[in-house]
Amino acid sequence: MVYGIIGTGAIGGYYGAKLARAGKDVHFLLHSDYDYVCKHGLVINSCDGDFMLPSVQAYDASFKMPQCDVVIVAMKSTNQSVVPDLIRPLLQEDTLVLLIQNGIGLEPDLQQSFPNLHIAAGLAFICSGKTEPGVISHQCYGSINIGNYSCKNSQILSSMIADFRDSGIETNELEYYEARWKKAVWNMPFNGMTVVMNAKTDELLQCKSTRQLIRRQMKEVVNAANALGVTALNDDFIEKMIDMTDSMTPYSPSMKLDFDYNRPMEVNYLYSRPIYEASKVGCDMPCLKMLEEELLFIESKRKHLCEVNPES
Amino acid sequence: MVYGIIGTGAIGGYYGAKLARAGKDVHFLLHSDYDYVCKHGLVINSCDGDFMLPSVQAYDASFKMPQCDVVIVAMKSTNQSVVPDLIRPLLQEDTLVLLIQNGIGLEPDLQQSFPNLHIAAGLAFICSGKTEPGVISHQCYGSINIGNYSCKNSQILSSMIADFRDSGIETNELEYYEARWKKAVWNMPFNGMTVVMNAKTDELLQCKSTRQLIRRQMKEVVNAANALGVTALNDDFIEKMIDMTDSMTPYSPSMKLDFDYNRPMEVNYLYSRPIYEASKVGCDMPCLKMLEEELLFIESKRKHLCEVNPES
Repeated sequence: MVYGIIGTGAIGGYYGAKLARAGKDVHFLLHSDYDYVCKHGLVINSCDGDFMLPSVQAYDASFKMPQCDVVIVAMKSTNQSVVPDLIRPLLQEDTLVLLIQNGIGLEPDLQQSFPNLHIAAGLAFICSGKTEPGVISHQCYGSINIGNYSCKNSQILSSMIADFRDSGIETNELEYYEARWKKAVWNMPFNGMTVVMNAKTDELLQCKSTRQLIRRQMKEVVNAANALGVTALNDDFIEKMIDMTDSMTPYSPSMKLDFDYNRPMEVNYLYSRPIYEASKVGCDMPCLKMLEEELLFIESKRKHLCEVNPES
Repeated sequence: MVYGIIGTGAIGGYYGAKLARAGKDVHFLLHSDYDYVCKHGLVINSCDGDFMLPSVQAYDASFKMPQCDVVIVAMKSTNQSVVPDLIRPLLQEDTLVLLIQNGIGLEPDLQQSFPNLHIAAGLAFICSGKTEPGVISHQCYGSINIGNYSCKNSQILSSMIADFRDSGIETNELEYYEARWKKAVWNMPFNGMTVVMNAKTDELLQCKSTRQLIRRQMKEVVNAANALGVTALNDDFIEKMIDMTDSMTPYSPSMKLDFDYNRPMEVNYLYSRPIYEASKVGCDMPCLKMLEEELLFIESKRKHLCEVNPES
């Protein structure tokens, strides 16, 4: 099995390195770190034990990469329109593309460009970050939920899952919509609220008013998922997410880090798209809609993109 | 007619000074500015023409003030529990208390302390501020809407309104609930949103996403008012408020100034109370509830008041 990693950051770098360390044939697409990683390899500082890959199959352009059995897309979704051209050179018949990205709607969008492509969703439960060139810091967790979106080749999907497990990655298979919406229950409240309130997860939960707001926002996600046919989500899951976050080290989700480091925020796939999908089945998400609008205000102010005459 | 002004700030100082300039018998309660105003009087720098009162009937405690025909309460509602004791020495039979304060629920709360008191609401449409001791800066507008809450003496109410008009204060009489809720349509979205987004009114309206959010929040107020029996509010009024704000000089509402100057914010009467009143007639205000919760988070973080174990 040949693996291609599109986006060698906190997520793609970590899972790709785990696969490579276990002897899998992994090819990494790099951008700003390319020269550094060619010279010095990849370093993974992990709570499960540090390791390094001294020699990495690194590329600075995807057309130089080989055709792959599995392509793992682990880029931010803020530049999603470039993904089809990026992965096209890696595709062969029966290539499986695994999107380890946050949000709702990524798989149908990619399918529009490649109607016959085998696509699956990967939901990473991990705290990790790229701290300097070629160095990934893995603080905790690390499991991955896989949801099959359109893969009609069960052989390649199970081979990939076997390789993940063989590489020490805890991997679970879930129904696709359940996998995506389960992650959204945590992602939608905490990513935006940490930005708008300029706070970490613990502060939001320690204050009575935002604790009840987070719970109500989670309920909006559960209601939307239920309306869309995902029956596995309910109030118990909300309590599980609250308890889990209470027990976590105070945390800044990826959107908060993007905001702090002045990178674009993933508002579209994390908010606009799920809100739109819910609205199509008659389900309002008033507090998450408001959160989306607050984030868009912050984003436009930051970029000086405020429209001067929005209604003219 | 003897007037008592409880709270000689941007509002009480302005309207009290207008009445005094017109020759009415006005007694001012002052706090930090008492010594200064005794020596130098009150200065009103106004868009309608500057004027000063060299000699002011000033007091540093309400028990030193005379009994009044009309008591005008123009304090921030953040310390509303002290109002009964403050005004008690000024009351005689048939005293009218006019509450020129923001929010919903002020009159019924005061009535609980004085079941037979004549109470009316005053809704000031004014941009003014106290810029230094004894100096009030009046930038624009200045009219006042009066809503009779429990005044059974029509003589004193009309005498007061006649005095206001005689003093150059544009004064309109409205049904009580209509007066209070009309003001809430503007107050509830803009006061909180300027704090949470750290922006002035113009920025919020220039950005498409917050413009539509403000409109939706106004709609929540209109729906609540309708549910509470105020039929005069509708979508046209929302558009009027948006148009009016578009044409205003970029503005920081009173809550934004309170926040900027590290004073407590009027979250209770501006948010918690109207949201509660609406909930009693089955009307949700989801976006304004979220705004309230965001404001309470900001307030508690500022005061280091976060509860550590909110549910234990």
